[in-house]
Amino acid sequence: MARVGIIGCGQTAFGRRSDATVQELAFEAWRAALADAGVEPDVVEATVVGSVPEYHKQRSLPGVIQEYLNLNPRPVWLTEAACASGSAALRTAWLEIAAGVHDVVAVIGCQKMTELETAEILALMGRVGDVQWESGFGTTFPGYYAMFARRHMHEFGTTSDQLAAVAVKNHHYGAANPKAMFRKEITVAKARASEEVSAPLSVYDCCANADGAACVILAGERAARAMGKDRVVWLDGMGCASDSMSVLRRTDLTGLPSARAAAAQAYAMAGVTAKDIQVADVHDCFTIAEIMAYEDLGFCGRGEGGPFIDARGSYIGGAHPVNLDGGLKAKGHPIGATGVSMTCEIVSQLRGECGPRQVPGASVGLTHNVGGIGQYCFVNVLRRD
Amino acid sequence: MARVGIIGCGQTAFGRRSDATVQELAFEAWRAALADAGVEPDVVEATVVGSVPEYHKQRSLPGVIQEYLNLNPRPVWLTEAACASGSAALRTAWLEIAAGVHDVVAVIGCQKMTELETAEILALMGRVGDVQWESGFGTTFPGYYAMFARRHMHEFGTTSDQLAAVAVKNHHYGAANPKAMFRKEITVAKARASEEVSAPLSVYDCCANADGAACVILAGERAARAMGKDRVVWLDGMGCASDSMSVLRRTDLTGLPSARAAAAQAYAMAGVTAKDIQVADVHDCFTIAEIMAYEDLGFCGRGEGGPFIDARGSYIGGAHPVNLDGGLKAKGHPIGATGVSMTCEIVSQLRGECGPRQVPGASVGLTHNVGGIGQYCFVNVLRRD
Repeated sequence: MARVGIIGCGQTAFGRRSDATVQELAFEAWRAALADAGVEPDVVEATVVGSVPEYHKQRSLPGVIQEYLNLNPRPVWLTEAACASGSAALRTAWLEIAAGVHDVVAVIGCQKMTELETAEILALMGRVGDVQWESGFGTTFPGYYAMFARRHMHEFGTTSDQLAAVAVKNHHYGAANPKAMFRKEITVAKARASEEVSAPLSVYDCCANADGAACVILAGERAARAMGKDRVVWLDGMGCASDSMSVLRRTDLTGLPSARAAAAQAYAMAGVTAKDIQVADVHDCFTIAEIMAYEDLGFCGRGEGGPFIDARGSYIGGAHPVNLDGGLKAKGHPIGATGVSMTCEIVSQLRGECGPRQVPGASVGLTHNVGGIGQYCFVNVLRRD
Repeated sequence: MARVGIIGCGQTAFGRRSDATVQELAFEAWRAALADAGVEPDVVEATVVGSVPEYHKQRSLPGVIQEYLNLNPRPVWLTEAACASGSAALRTAWLEIAAGVHDVVAVIGCQKMTELETAEILALMGRVGDVQWESGFGTTFPGYYAMFARRHMHEFGTTSDQLAAVAVKNHHYGAANPKAMFRKEITVAKARASEEVSAPLSVYDCCANADGAACVILAGERAARAMGKDRVVWLDGMGCASDSMSVLRRTDLTGLPSARAAAAQAYAMAGVTAKDIQVADVHDCFTIAEIMAYEDLGFCGRGEGGPFIDARGSYIGGAHPVNLDGGLKAKGHPIGATGVSMTCEIVSQLRGECGPRQVPGASVGLTHNVGGIGQYCFVNVLRRD
């Protein structure tokens, strides 16, 4: 299989983007990625769009994006795996190059969520749970993750202060990320005082719906070399797994089996273990999700996620710095864009371009992108030679 | 690149399936495909689901399908390319095997459309056109294809009788397909007398919304041989192209440039030309679309689609028999299922299993699956050794 690398990245600012349509957001990220890669549009042979269609008035988004980016007649389609749709697009583009079908492919993750009211969004998101047996009875995403949090607290003694500490860290680093939606420091006290959403989760335990887009340009090793690209970040470990959509079928509510399976695949393929991961972007849709990710990825033992954040293990200087772009929590979560944006952040880290939030000398990084409550999980290991 | 083949196919009956949820339809097709392949579920390493999400109350369909098929923790995600979503799923699964990531992958195309009212469906479909510049002003899919028909008539003298003749052929063969939605012969007079939908198209020029699912199981050549499979149909030519979503950007309304580009790719990859195609399933969402497909695929010259159907060139015994399963017109068009169902039909033809609608001795076949008004087109060449 050909080695596949990332030669360019770009993303929009995340937040309320009433100034731009979804195709305009895609274009903004695409143009930034082209400039970053130093290539002309005509070298890009195909596009894959990661997005969750139902948030947009426009249906069948890849058609309008491919037209707006002036990329016809090149191939394009959309991938959807709930909040991991961007990683499904990245995986598809990786497959296109690994199979030898294309040499250079663009991945565009994009989402405009603020066209809808929050209640509409919650209703749509609830239907990403099983509609026959669960969402019909009132489950919501904060409710699902609140169950995870309750169980984690019950089994391992995890505390609300530890959940809040995740939000404090992510706001701390988000404040240094010019693309982040929320650029302000918070305290545990402030987070704890915020309004309850679904106990034990309150406002600062939850990420925010946002608009945004991100783009990465992939190339096969031979094509990257032929173009003289010398700061390529390689997709050396690609993991993907699924789990039941119904929470009622889960035998354990303290972690995501799909994340553990995807991580095992990615580590094996890249020839690394958890201890080699120097920087990671993980799917902190809720603070408890980041604590579970520490454990599922092997950054600490089962049940030790709370003490891991207490010990600042996920800060720069800790064993595994996590979400130095602010994470979903502070950067914002435009769902289709998120997996691609995570990839952009890790590429920037491995290139040493992150300024005040840079992990010094990082050469191996990881992305962890969850769809729904773990019915999909994509874990990728990236490496700078 | 590893050669990839189809080792099993299955599909549900198409039509109004109020007896089954969408995951139950997927299961029905999956079970039939497993039986046809003669394999156990555990050999299937991954699944790709082709569907258009917004027709279902259930969101993020691959999660609920993977659970219902008991395939967790194996990878799954969804592909969307409007009415070509099933072919996007097939292409993704082909890439997974061609890249050497998996040996055996299932493709499931599924759609339940009859949960919505026709007016809701038309509104959703209209938004597969550009919402900013077109659908907001009242364009609908019958309207778009009516423009194609008008222009084809104007430039080439194509007649309403020729359009009706396509419907007559597809109903003729659909009557012999036990899975088809409409199993009745019609006449040109009956088609011409049907109610106008968007002039010059009337009811019998339009395919029907339907429920249904189809599944194919793909394997790499080495895996297929190792499993002792001896009636494999090979995916030897895989083409995919795009075109503008906006009809206002098209310079020609008498054919689909994406279809011509995808066909050229598929022919070149398979080492064949149009004249080698012995049986084809093409995207007759409207009768004019089948006439344009004859021309775009090179079955006849530009503007000769009308005379081609008059001369019965697309009947068994003609130069290129087309839509012997009844096509979208008589078999029904559950959008995500269609591309996969086309593939099932061509596999059955190349295996010689089609009884009264069999092309004798066919060994090279083709599928042509269009999304929207050609913003996506997938053309594949299949071969039985």
